[in-house]
Amino acid sequence: MPHAPGIYLDNAATTPLSEPAREAMEPFLGDRFGNASSVHAPGREARKAVDEARERVAAAIGARPDEVVFTSGGTEADNLAIKGAAWHGREQGRDGVVVSAIEHHAVLDPARWLARQGFRVREVQVDSSGVVSLDALKTAIDDRAAIVSVMWANNEVGSVQPVAGCAALARDAGAVFHSDAVQGVPWLDVDASIAGLISLSAHKVGGPKGVGALIVRRGVKIQALLHGGGQEREIRSGTYNVAGIVGFGAAVEHWIANRAAWADRASALRDRLQRRITGALENVHVSTSEATRLPNNLHLIFGGIDGESLILLLDAAGIAASQGSACSSGAAEPSHVLAAMGVSRDLARGALRLTLGPQTSTADVDRASDAVVEAVKRLRGR
Amino acid sequence: MPHAPGIYLDNAATTPLSEPAREAMEPFLGDRFGNASSVHAPGREARKAVDEARERVAAAIGARPDEVVFTSGGTEADNLAIKGAAWHGREQGRDGVVVSAIEHHAVLDPARWLARQGFRVREVQVDSSGVVSLDALKTAIDDRAAIVSVMWANNEVGSVQPVAGCAALARDAGAVFHSDAVQGVPWLDVDASIAGLISLSAHKVGGPKGVGALIVRRGVKIQALLHGGGQEREIRSGTYNVAGIVGFGAAVEHWIANRAAWADRASALRDRLQRRITGALENVHVSTSEATRLPNNLHLIFGGIDGESLILLLDAAGIAASQGSACSSGAAEPSHVLAAMGVSRDLARGALRLTLGPQTSTADVDRASDAVVEAVKRLRGR
Repeated sequence: MPHAPGIYLDNAATTPLSEPAREAMEPFLGDRFGNASSVHAPGREARKAVDEARERVAAAIGARPDEVVFTSGGTEADNLAIKGAAWHGREQGRDGVVVSAIEHHAVLDPARWLARQGFRVREVQVDSSGVVSLDALKTAIDDRAAIVSVMWANNEVGSVQPVAGCAALARDAGAVFHSDAVQGVPWLDVDASIAGLISLSAHKVGGPKGVGALIVRRGVKIQALLHGGGQEREIRSGTYNVAGIVGFGAAVEHWIANRAAWADRASALRDRLQRRITGALENVHVSTSEATRLPNNLHLIFGGIDGESLILLLDAAGIAASQGSACSSGAAEPSHVLAAMGVSRDLARGALRLTLGPQTSTADVDRASDAVVEAVKRLRGR
Repeated sequence: MPHAPGIYLDNAATTPLSEPAREAMEPFLGDRFGNASSVHAPGREARKAVDEARERVAAAIGARPDEVVFTSGGTEADNLAIKGAAWHGREQGRDGVVVSAIEHHAVLDPARWLARQGFRVREVQVDSSGVVSLDALKTAIDDRAAIVSVMWANNEVGSVQPVAGCAALARDAGAVFHSDAVQGVPWLDVDASIAGLISLSAHKVGGPKGVGALIVRRGVKIQALLHGGGQEREIRSGTYNVAGIVGFGAAVEHWIANRAAWADRASALRDRLQRRITGALENVHVSTSEATRLPNNLHLIFGGIDGESLILLLDAAGIAASQGSACSSGAAEPSHVLAAMGVSRDLARGALRLTLGPQTSTADVDRASDAVVEAVKRLRGR
């Protein structure tokens, strides 16, 4: 298989490793190979690098270094948050878990698994733009709630959630508020002071795959998911992925320094992409309202076509796009996010997610929009 | 801090990334950055690399590729095995968990956590050489046992365990047998057919940190620890750490091809190291019997000294060594492994673990033994 050429418009699935991240990692894939838990010189050298990365990750969202718990990625961070808070809550007499219906499966599925273990789990619906209703959330939270989880922004349709309001409702009920900010951090000003637990992923901000973090704010107590050597204040055991953690730190520092400019640029390009596609085709629907979406996200639904076929035609034209989350690619089930937004099963089949990155150019956008228009027309038989 | 020079004799803690692993990883830290769950060309390219690595990891121990579940490392693999099998077992009416007393904390601590959740957990003692007694194990296993876990070889003293016999006892009782082979794979012929679940780690065989695998043999059922996107047959969700997995595959293939020769060489050098140290000092005890230890492991106990001080003196002389597992470095508690072997708390303070690697030379061994002798004499006040 030749290396994929063409235009990459699937930055919500993963991003290229940035040059600062790659450079920072290199020594730790070379002669700086120590185990960060060892007391000798190679170990201390590794530990120092981990701690510097910890400071960078914390600074990116205004957290304290000692609040960063490194994990193997966003999925582990979400699982640790939901299960860890629920298990701790149960020991305090709280067995309620409240999540929005449009959470990533890394939040939804742990919640559903906990339901099988006897926890009281509630899934809160969203409006037709994919935004959680604070009224509905308020109704779902009671004084038995251990944890309330609402993502910072949705990974499929890009809808930004009212996390400050959600957090206040959780706080009023004495529950911990968790937010999966994996898609939020690249494009929004994520402020750690809003939530008790926040999930981060390196590879969505130009870092390596296989590393992420759960921010556990001071005073918030959770149980561990991985027990063992006792790393990360006993919350997350396992040998430190030193190179990955160092890459995460360098990537997120570089990304955040550029985020505002990149977001403005992505937003303008995304609008151009949207205009060129919706202006050339009938029966195309923009899934999320203008007011509340991520600047790099364009989620469209084309009536009368099969989105899977559209993805394949675009792929053949050198355009990397997706229907929804990468994790669920190829799944027969329609998106739970679109279902929660009230999109019919039939319409949901025609979904297309285009997510821009810092590297996306105007020429990319123009070529991609032409390819989308051409492919949709072809699938509709003109 | 300058890069650590000197002699690295802590290969049980971690190993340098091998050149084949580093080369294999490079493209995936560069323009081959796709998400292996995406259906487009960059995604398929990543998926293909993951599947090739899966074949290499499987081949290293005679497993089938579809039995490999990639994890973030040995700790996650152990947690997934113990908790996943226990949770599944409970749904089948089996709530027993049997582990040896000298397991790594990544096995022991999940078992102890399960005990707090109501599981019946038994810890089986070992003899003075750190070898599990089959009689004691037999007594501990009953028909309520869901999982029996005995490591392939111990990470501190290097004692090799009678895993085939342990597996037979588990099988007779209808329990799943798990073995943490993290330290076994680098130096022994680990045969996947012996166990139902086997934990592996990349960074102990020249691979990167942050990646490992649990081998889940066909027919063995466990629950997931990380829920989400449904990767790895729903057993382990999370975006694939493509570069890490590719590095693991290349590293283990390279290591296994050389293992027999490296083991012979390490064994001879280890014996030389032992002779030079024990020949020059009084009151030094070799912890594990000759018949049952890993070829690269030399675990010594020096009477009348503090091992922590010894490690620091050796570090100052450019020798990287440890007292026991890296994870527990700096812990005030004495080693649970030595305690299980009947070593007194006082004597256990004088422990030193030297673990050789493929890169260890005769000159390293001679310089290290001189340094150990010198340091011990100094600590004893000559």
